Amino acid sequence: MRTAVCPGSFDPITRGHVDVVRRARSMFDEVVVAVARNSAKTPLLDVEERLRLAAAAVADLDGVRVEAVDGLLAAYVRRTGAVAVVKGLRSGADLDAELPMALMNRHLIGVETVFVVGDGALAHVASSLVKDVARHGGEIDDLVPPGVGEAVRAALRAAQQVRADERGSTR
Amino acid sequence: MRTAVCPGSFDPITRGHVDVVRRARSMFDEVVVAVARNSAKTPLLDVEERLRLAAAAVADLDGVRVEAVDGLLAAYVRRTGAVAVVKGLRSGADLDAELPMALMNRHLIGVETVFVVGDGALAHVASSLVKDVARHGGEIDDLVPPGVGEAVRAALRAAQQVRADERGSTR
Amino acid sequence: MRTAVCPGSFDPITRGHVDVVRRARSMFDEVVVAVARNSAKTPLLDVEERLRLAAAAVADLDGVRVEAVDGLLAAYVRRTGAVAVVKGLRSGADLDAELPMALMNRHLIGVETVFVVGDGALAHVASSLVKDVARHGGEIDDLVPPGVGEAVRAALRAAQQVRADERGSTR
Amino acid sequence: MRTAVCPGSFDPITRGHVDVVRRARSMFDEVVVAVARNSAKTPLLDVEERLRLAAAAVADLDGVRVEAVDGLLAAYVRRTGAVAVVKGLRSGADLDAELPMALMNRHLIGVETVFVVGDGALAHVASSLVKDVARHGGEIDDLVPPGVGEAVRAALRAAQQVRADERGSTR
Amino acid sequence: MRTAVCPGSFDPITRGHVDVVRRARSMFDEVVVAVARNSAKTPLLDVEERLRLAAAAVADLDGVRVEAVDGLLAAYVRRTGAVAVVKGLRSGADLDAELPMALMNRHLIGVETVFVVGDGALAHVASSLVKDVARHGGEIDDLVPPGVGEAVRAALRAAQQVRADERGSTR
Amino acid sequence: MRTAVCPGSFDPITRGHVDVVRRARSMFDEVVVAVARNSAKTPLLDVEERLRLAAAAVADLDGVRVEAVDGLLAAYVRRTGAVAVVKGLRSGADLDAELPMALMNRHLIGVETVFVVGDGALAHVASSLVKDVARHGGEIDDLVPPGVGEAVRAALRAAQQVRADERGSTR
Repeated sequence: MRTAVCPGSFDPITRGHVDVVRRARSMFDEVVVAVARNSAKTPLLDVEERLRLAAAAVADLDGVRVEAVDGLLAAYVRRTGAVAVVKGLRSGADLDAELPMALMNRHLIGVETVFVVGDGALAHVASSLVKDVARHGGEIDDLVPPGVGEAVRAALRAAQQVRADERGSTR
Repeated sequence: MRTAVCPGSFDPITRGHVDVVRRARSMFDEVVVAVARNSAKTPLLDVEERLRLAAAAVADLDGVRVEAVDGLLAAYVRRTGAVAVVKGLRSGADLDAELPMALMNRHLIGVETVFVVGDGALAHVASSLVKDVARHGGEIDDLVPPGVGEAVRAALRAAQQVRADERGSTR
Repeated sequence: MRTAVCPGSFDPITRGHVDVVRRARSMFDEVVVAVARNSAKTPLLDVEERLRLAAAAVADLDGVRVEAVDGLLAAYVRRTGAVAVVKGLRSGADLDAELPMALMNRHLIGVETVFVVGDGALAHVASSLVKDVARHGGEIDDLVPPGVGEAVRAALRAAQQVRADERGSTR
Repeated sequence: MRTAVCPGSFDPITRGHVDVVRRARSMFDEVVVAVARNSAKTPLLDVEERLRLAAAAVADLDGVRVEAVDGLLAAYVRRTGAVAVVKGLRSGADLDAELPMALMNRHLIGVETVFVVGDGALAHVASSLVKDVARHGGEIDDLVPPGVGEAVRAALRAAQQVRADERGSTR
Repeated sequence: MRTAVCPGSFDPITRGHVDVVRRARSMFDEVVVAVARNSAKTPLLDVEERLRLAAAAVADLDGVRVEAVDGLLAAYVRRTGAVAVVKGLRSGADLDAELPMALMNRHLIGVETVFVVGDGALAHVASSLVKDVARHGGEIDDLVPPGVGEAVRAALRAAQQVRADERGSTR
Repeated sequence: MRTAVCPGSFDPITRGHVDVVRRARSMFDEVVVAVARNSAKTPLLDVEERLRLAAAAVADLDGVRVEAVDGLLAAYVRRTGAVAVVKGLRSGADLDAELPMALMNRHLIGVETVFVVGDGALAHVASSLVKDVARHGGEIDDLVPPGVGEAVRAALRAAQQVRADERGSTR
């Protein structure tokens, strides 16, 4: 059985991610959605929430499961015995950004990365942009799987409350 | 009458921005310089200063006005009835960075973005680089409209003073 | 009244071209589809056929007309009094290819080029690729306006016949 | 069993191609090297020669075979029941060039393309550049599998002879 | 003494080329403008004309000379003992196109290529575009060194005459 | 004597940096590795450590020395009388990111930047990625000069300790 890994922060999972996972599954026997527990940037959603939303989004896809990843992705991929990391691309600029990481994973542990081209109709659906739209009061429910929009809005309200409290406590 | 919107943080407005506004005005009857009140990054200049400097920079351009934008740009564009968002580009890399936002604005509210090519002689005049040069003591007055250089230097001195005070108060 | 020019070889016009023309028309009062009579590469379709197919494809668009262009595009644009050349883009790579021409047209005659982003669902619909698919027996009718597919297939059959005759006459 | 197709002109096969085929084989159960019988450009080597050299180059790779492709690649892929087309990339520019074709193959017949990153040490080993070096008398034997260099040099000598004869006969 | 080589077809030399040569000369003791005798594409100007125009264009630059190159550039560079090949760039797209050749020259013979950024005001001044403008009757004299415009126009007239004669002789 | 400057944060110096310094040295009589004292981002290693590691990494290269740079790079380059700034590139995307800075340095003080292509086998060896791998427990010793790996691991442990202490003191 040939397994592929789709890694990311999934903060939150979008319809663009689900599109890539489906395409990966059409090529490999099993796909693992690998949610990074720690990332460089502070996520909006905590890892349990990101795992829960990702699992719900791929629940109807046979042969797809969701796992949390600690530490180095390359080490995780080797442990699972996967044959490839799969990443979605929208343009050459995306590839140029991903290339050093793909080469690093090959160098560290011999794991190969393959790139699939996402659905052109979802080319604007990146997690960061989705959060930015929601932060400014825009409608995101058609960009993300069911339930994700509400979770993002709740997290944004909570983050605003924290900032308001901090301002209050420093007066 | 056909209106176009030139959006941005304008932190601060540069000669590159003014060049794009002029080109937009040659194509549309009216151009609005739309200054984002809130942006992802903390600006050096507060929004009132950014609006004041932008207004001074385009004061001699007929059919151009400056406005502050709250919330989602796409919603603002719809309210003004503008037919296009206009952005300046210097290279394909610029376009790749702008593309998801342009597609998002189209998706959210049907507003189109058009890209114009800036003056090659101003290809290095980005706000962030201008601030960086000023921060290291470089001369920026030929990169920005009159009055902007002094405002940037004053803001940098004020920010340094705040940091010095913070260091003092924690001793 | 503000006129924009959409230039090209239109060999043949595709649904991607029509998408760009529609977007241009949403921004300008009038759009001219400017079909280059002579281009660097030998076209599959002669200029009368390219004009006829383009005219049919935009017949239902108000404020859009088709014209043949002889000589320099910049000179043509000046004669028409258009305020802009409009080109469709799919990626930064497209822009990098178009940039020198846009700067040349600005240099020669002061005409500005604006770039609009095409529909992501049509990102693969370039004339050259459409002809290539047809040449290998693939189905192109959903990539081009009505009538274009049949014209392309007829032209390919005629070109094949010419080559067969040439081979015959050299024996 | 999951099959992938590595398509191309292979005019001639290079060490860069073999590197991509090996990486594809590490991910899929079977890899078909699909040599296009007809391509847009006139090849240096005829299709039988290209097939022979490709077969020799992958002879020691288990689960890899070479086939000629007539007509549309997408139709061929469907006939073989392959789950993916695999292409090698060296940079974002390569991807931008391949993207329309990948989207076209998806559109025509639902076949997915995945991109793998070639060995950085072979980033300059493209067939066209290899032929160009050989044409100018440069050494190519370390850029191509055994036997390919001699075949390229023989084809270049034959092509030169044809041109010399043509010049002679028109005098 | 450190010598650098600026290679190309120079068909014809443009003000963009001269700008790059000047910049190269500011860094190295001596610069050789290396005009390729044979190139993939048929040049408009024969090699003697290209050499003559290049020599005239750099006549006032101390430490710069013009030479014809036969065969492989890398072999020529080694023979001259130059420390670097210098190429002008306008964008990342230019670099992606030049990269394989630069790596090939390093691989073949250990010669390094360095890239300098041309004057932004000349970003549209490529030989091919200059010829295209002249072919359509546009004015090119401010894009090329003195004398080059007339030479290009004469060569275009001669080429047209040849084509007219050929059409005559086949009737 | 012709001097070139290789600027950067060198946080830490990598084998990729050393590769670029060697290539610069093959073209110029002297190379200065210019370590920026202050940069936009907070470095992992303090400037004394970065200088020490850089000096050790180039100790065996004749005609190469390491210096700290305060303030504007362009002003520093003028003071040293260097003829060029040398930067390493891996792709067109790298160039697009470096271009505005190169043009700014030319504008400010007339200093030219030249770009050399790094060793393809080191294309993944960027300081930020190296630190990221180390942070997740990956092995970096073959990516950096001797001694650097241990320094990075020590700095990461110290940074973790500071964060742990901060969490403790706020309870």
